[in-house]
Amino acid sequence: MPRSVAAHRGAVVELLTRQVAAKGTEDVPLMAALGRALAMDLHAPLSLPPFANSQMDGFAVNSADIPDGGAQLSVAPPVPAGAQPQPLERGFAVPIMTGAMIPDGADAVVPIEKALPSTFPAPDAPDTTVRLPAVSPGTFVRDAGSDIAEGHPALTAGTYLGPAQLGLLAAFGLSSVKVRKPLRVLLVTTGDEVVEPGAELAAGKIYDSNGTLLEASMRQAGLDVVRTGISDDDPAALRRTLQEYVPHAGSTAEAVDLIVTTGGVSKGAYEVVRQAMEGEEADFIPVAMQPGGPQGIGRFQGVPFLGFPGNPVSCLVSFEMFLRPALSAVLGTPLPRPATRARLAAPLTSPEGKHQVRRGSLSGEVLRMEGGPGSHLVHALARSNALVQIPAHVTELPEGAEVEVWVL
Amino acid sequence: MPRSVAAHRGAVVELLTRQVAAKGTEDVPLMAALGRALAMDLHAPLSLPPFANSQMDGFAVNSADIPDGGAQLSVAPPVPAGAQPQPLERGFAVPIMTGAMIPDGADAVVPIEKALPSTFPAPDAPDTTVRLPAVSPGTFVRDAGSDIAEGHPALTAGTYLGPAQLGLLAAFGLSSVKVRKPLRVLLVTTGDEVVEPGAELAAGKIYDSNGTLLEASMRQAGLDVVRTGISDDDPAALRRTLQEYVPHAGSTAEAVDLIVTTGGVSKGAYEVVRQAMEGEEADFIPVAMQPGGPQGIGRFQGVPFLGFPGNPVSCLVSFEMFLRPALSAVLGTPLPRPATRARLAAPLTSPEGKHQVRRGSLSGEVLRMEGGPGSHLVHALARSNALVQIPAHVTELPEGAEVEVWVL
Repeated sequence: MPRSVAAHRGAVVELLTRQVAAKGTEDVPLMAALGRALAMDLHAPLSLPPFANSQMDGFAVNSADIPDGGAQLSVAPPVPAGAQPQPLERGFAVPIMTGAMIPDGADAVVPIEKALPSTFPAPDAPDTTVRLPAVSPGTFVRDAGSDIAEGHPALTAGTYLGPAQLGLLAAFGLSSVKVRKPLRVLLVTTGDEVVEPGAELAAGKIYDSNGTLLEASMRQAGLDVVRTGISDDDPAALRRTLQEYVPHAGSTAEAVDLIVTTGGVSKGAYEVVRQAMEGEEADFIPVAMQPGGPQGIGRFQGVPFLGFPGNPVSCLVSFEMFLRPALSAVLGTPLPRPATRARLAAPLTSPEGKHQVRRGSLSGEVLRMEGGPGSHLVHALARSNALVQIPAHVTELPEGAEVEVWVL
Repeated sequence: MPRSVAAHRGAVVELLTRQVAAKGTEDVPLMAALGRALAMDLHAPLSLPPFANSQMDGFAVNSADIPDGGAQLSVAPPVPAGAQPQPLERGFAVPIMTGAMIPDGADAVVPIEKALPSTFPAPDAPDTTVRLPAVSPGTFVRDAGSDIAEGHPALTAGTYLGPAQLGLLAAFGLSSVKVRKPLRVLLVTTGDEVVEPGAELAAGKIYDSNGTLLEASMRQAGLDVVRTGISDDDPAALRRTLQEYVPHAGSTAEAVDLIVTTGGVSKGAYEVVRQAMEGEEADFIPVAMQPGGPQGIGRFQGVPFLGFPGNPVSCLVSFEMFLRPALSAVLGTPLPRPATRARLAAPLTSPEGKHQVRRGSLSGEVLRMEGGPGSHLVHALARSNALVQIPAHVTELPEGAEVEVWVL
């Protein structure tokens, strides 16, 4: 019986878990950490905000100085931005700008619009006064630690570090951060019929799009990618290529953490990847998914191995359904694809017992299919912005039916 | 009256349009084009597939050779992968692998599972035969050009080049592509109270998180970012800094296409950016949005200028609501944020007449708010994965209400 999509994804997670743990961590400057995963739980090294500050341009006051009907207060010299102000004397109001420190003795801020006059006196003006309405304690004051208090849990290990998370680290005063090291992947496309883009195309040959498609996907997902040339259909030559990247004495190439191949995993007469993996701890199994059904998984001389099928759409679907989510789960990066619900612009059918992944264009809540189910339709794929998930038990859906889509 | 969010976004689009056109294009290798925008309309330089090929491992036949009850056909030598096969002789069936070229004279493929025997004969086996069921013309044949025909429109100018689009270019045999040049942005954070992460934090000071947050956002969006040190509250010094990056004779720094500042745009007494922009063609206006209401827009000595407010959340919201969508519209990259609908886990209120952008965590279809509306809540922002869009006319929403969210 074919393996379910969830079971195969679980197997990929298991394959990568030890590798990620062994890979270790490194300290990098904040900007180099963009898109990577935090290596340890982080506690706030200081409170945010670090001190009570004003949420408005206005006057800091002691709320007890203003009765219900309001009061006329003397104006003290303004709180300088970025400095510790003098304590507030009773009966005084002190001009304060947004973000400036609340002076000792003040407990509230009256916005400038509510003051009479509603402008700040010139800094060198002689003794002036201002009329202010009553205010409750705490009004327009951002308390120290009201965002997060020193020592409290701030981010957990495995958090994806995007702009907001790096902004938080900067607010904590950190200029570098410990992140998990990215995995290094060897990507090998195979096939006697496949030639490099830019080369001459003889009859019967096609250009290799899998290499570009997967390298780009892997780079966007934060992997370090090593490419070999296209492997022909000679299993012995493929084994020699893979062996160069396996950790061993005398190796000339840097070892990789994962090997991904394309093609040569079906049940045909000439399946170079299956043949090259003979004697290795690797399985070639059907997954109940279309496209991308035949999958290889295991280890080549100890190095984790995934064998994707040879069609471009199958490659992309294999990456998006198995490797990418496994990286999110195990490494913390990339972020999972946003999943949403959409309505079919036209009816569709789907093979019984197979989870079908179609490609479509999502516009608002309406989803139009791009091309048919064929796994060679790379132009239709390039017009798509979403993967449509049709569960294995579904065989037909009417126009307007709601489906799950993953936004690419 | 404050400007609407849509009107201000339109103004940012207008500000950038001429700059993007003037910036021009460049040819880059495919992998360097990842995440960039195609510079011209592209027509297919060849058909995909380039030739009719088999969708299955099986036997290529002339469908007219098999009557309804099936037929016993002689087996011809197999079609070699990646080569032009011999024409098919009538009465013969030729073993063919997925992707191999359909021989002249064949018009259909019978999958190996439907053959008797259901295995391929050894290549050196003497004269063998196979029993095959009847098949309609075209079955399991991928016609030349069935994905896209040579000369047909393939991708339009401004298309975002992700893995699938680069895969298509590779399938066309292209090894490089003409893309729009990225914009170069000068990012200046201002404030007497702001210090660089890693430095000592005196009383009343805070660490600059805006610089990190915005630089990371801009880099993810494909911009080239130039940072200055933090500008203090001296308008003359800020003008001198900006002038270095304006195209002019004797400039020592490379000119930029856009200046983005943070802070100093409100109506307070000391607003360094407003003061530095006096005499320039720039406006400081209220936008009916919370946070991020006060916005600067215009030109500094001809260079497009955007002045974001000084709080970190306001900076991120300004970037996500104005600059990022404008880049998507004008340049074609980055891709717009995926928008979806979610249900509120708790009721909320929103100020009348202001489009409120709250931060939240989307889990399935349920949205939990992270922190309150305060624009200083950078830890709450770092826990969020979505921006919640509350239109200006909405003042309260019950638990379970549907809202639009943008997935970060």
